[in-house]
Amino acid sequence: MSRRYAVLAPGHFVDDAKTAHGVIAYSTDPTVAVIDPAWAGKRVRDAVAHLQSDAPIVASVTEALRYDPTALLIGTAPKGGALPADWRAAILDAIAAKLEIVSGLHDMLGEDPEFAAAAQRAGTRIWDVRKPPDVPLFSGKVYDVAAPTLLLVGNDCAVGKMTVALELQRAAGRAGKKAAFVPTGQTGIMIAGWGISIDRVIADFAPGATETLVCYAAQSNPDVILVEGQGSINHPAYAPVTLALMYGAAPDSLVLVCDPVRERIAGYNTPTLGYRELIRIHEALLATVKPARTVGIALNTRNLDDAQARAHIARAREETKLPADDVVRYGPDSLYAAIAPSFHKERPCGA
Amino acid sequence: MSRRYAVLAPGHFVDDAKTAHGVIAYSTDPTVAVIDPAWAGKRVRDAVAHLQSDAPIVASVTEALRYDPTALLIGTAPKGGALPADWRAAILDAIAAKLEIVSGLHDMLGEDPEFAAAAQRAGTRIWDVRKPPDVPLFSGKVYDVAAPTLLLVGNDCAVGKMTVALELQRAAGRAGKKAAFVPTGQTGIMIAGWGISIDRVIADFAPGATETLVCYAAQSNPDVILVEGQGSINHPAYAPVTLALMYGAAPDSLVLVCDPVRERIAGYNTPTLGYRELIRIHEALLATVKPARTVGIALNTRNLDDAQARAHIARAREETKLPADDVVRYGPDSLYAAIAPSFHKERPCGA
Repeated sequence: MSRRYAVLAPGHFVDDAKTAHGVIAYSTDPTVAVIDPAWAGKRVRDAVAHLQSDAPIVASVTEALRYDPTALLIGTAPKGGALPADWRAAILDAIAAKLEIVSGLHDMLGEDPEFAAAAQRAGTRIWDVRKPPDVPLFSGKVYDVAAPTLLLVGNDCAVGKMTVALELQRAAGRAGKKAAFVPTGQTGIMIAGWGISIDRVIADFAPGATETLVCYAAQSNPDVILVEGQGSINHPAYAPVTLALMYGAAPDSLVLVCDPVRERIAGYNTPTLGYRELIRIHEALLATVKPARTVGIALNTRNLDDAQARAHIARAREETKLPADDVVRYGPDSLYAAIAPSFHKERPCGA
Repeated sequence: MSRRYAVLAPGHFVDDAKTAHGVIAYSTDPTVAVIDPAWAGKRVRDAVAHLQSDAPIVASVTEALRYDPTALLIGTAPKGGALPADWRAAILDAIAAKLEIVSGLHDMLGEDPEFAAAAQRAGTRIWDVRKPPDVPLFSGKVYDVAAPTLLLVGNDCAVGKMTVALELQRAAGRAGKKAAFVPTGQTGIMIAGWGISIDRVIADFAPGATETLVCYAAQSNPDVILVEGQGSINHPAYAPVTLALMYGAAPDSLVLVCDPVRERIAGYNTPTLGYRELIRIHEALLATVKPARTVGIALNTRNLDDAQARAHIARAREETKLPADDVVRYGPDSLYAAIAPSFHKERPCGA
């Protein structure tokens, strides 16, 4: 099902709209307008330089309707979780105009009585992409997946794990290989149109949910499966989700995605780990369950100049003896070519 | 609130009723009858030698009512999750007799329309102990807890982590110290009357739920906090819960609880880890977030004879140079005395 998105990100489109940026950059469904009064009158590419989109930024849902959207995508999360009053009004305007509502918030908009009643009256629907389906416990059936599986892991949240997976998928396609992307978070789900937000699954079932996704992706007989990562193995709050992806996806290969200048986990005092510590701890955990090897490093150098970026890439290569690059800045083809020969199946431990 | 329990465990009281055994052994609320037609006419201690209880085993709820219970405790979990028809009938009989229903099942009995309506008619209530409250994200406030915190970890599920915590709590009391027990699973919650089943919390919030529990326990100014562990760090399905407890409880000390002859994770082919591997991987994960040291080993030698038990304890001491014992077989006082001098606060990493 194809959508034409109006993206709601009032006051936050430039600085705090990771979901909106991901969908604009990678979804095959076009964004036709962005709603953010702070930047109304500009175009997307004027507000966010790395987004190659001429879509207009407007002040309201009513103005956005001129560009004929079919869906309103909630492009950012309100601070503290509760919806501000002007967001509620905007969402109700969109529902009244029969737009589908697409939300990645923890709060389920479809369970809000006012939104649910309005959607029923208008004959449209609310897609809470984070709402998990019923999933089974981890069974081990993922060990029978034929395609080599690669999991993105990293030194923190929001360093670009999803972006690296999507760029490697493009590079695989250019190299004549079919790569399946497995979405595990709300933005990935909006981009791909399927998936499960693993952070929203009951803890006991998070590895089983991940296994279900990988087995589903395997049905299309891809040459390689690329699993979007989440969090970081030493993140005080999100590490359980990271570990659920590691054991549930049962990867054969890992790619580290790191912000090379991030010193602390965002929002906490916990220090981020260096490349060699990251490799050691991920491989040690997987060694006793489903062995995997780290095959490359993708750096996010967005906030650095070219000389700094190249210096960090050189240092990562030197420290780890692994291929390293920034797949957004320099394109993914070189890193893909360097790591693809390392893709191969590993048997689970004890099999 | 004090309860008198009738325990429902039809066909499973002896072999598959960990919850029932835990409540009978450790709850201050007495079990007045067990319902299991397979053992009707016997007493609890005849069916399960290690339980010091003379409570009668009967064939039905109606018979159990002669012993004046105030609550029906679901003492085992049905295979496959769905309630068998005869269990439904037994639960409805208990509700009709105005018993409170206490359940640790994943399925919420209070959300079952038939049970909910019956409970309302009878004026009694259904306590789904696994139902989690709303909990916040992990914040780091647990780092300010004054009491040394000890977390039980182990080489698999169902090896006795809760039992070891409760035995160490008793030993602390005999040594003149106040130890707070933090329940993190359904049986511990039934025994202590409070807690959160961490395996039932949404993955993103599992460390925050654990932190909430430890901070609550700290309010009573205990000398030491003993946190019930769950799963195992290399358990393919439950390790995310284990890691959530590690980062969320932010322990200062760890005690390993191991079945010394278990070679594989129950239900999977994954090999269990040896003592030194377990120590290494737990301490490596915590080192980058909230450092903790392993201070002792509690072995579960229930299925071994005395000579075998002593040999395994000696081997654990030799391999790890740590105090080791079986706290059920030989009492907890000796292990408690050996590890208590090691209790001390560790600052979080990066603080």
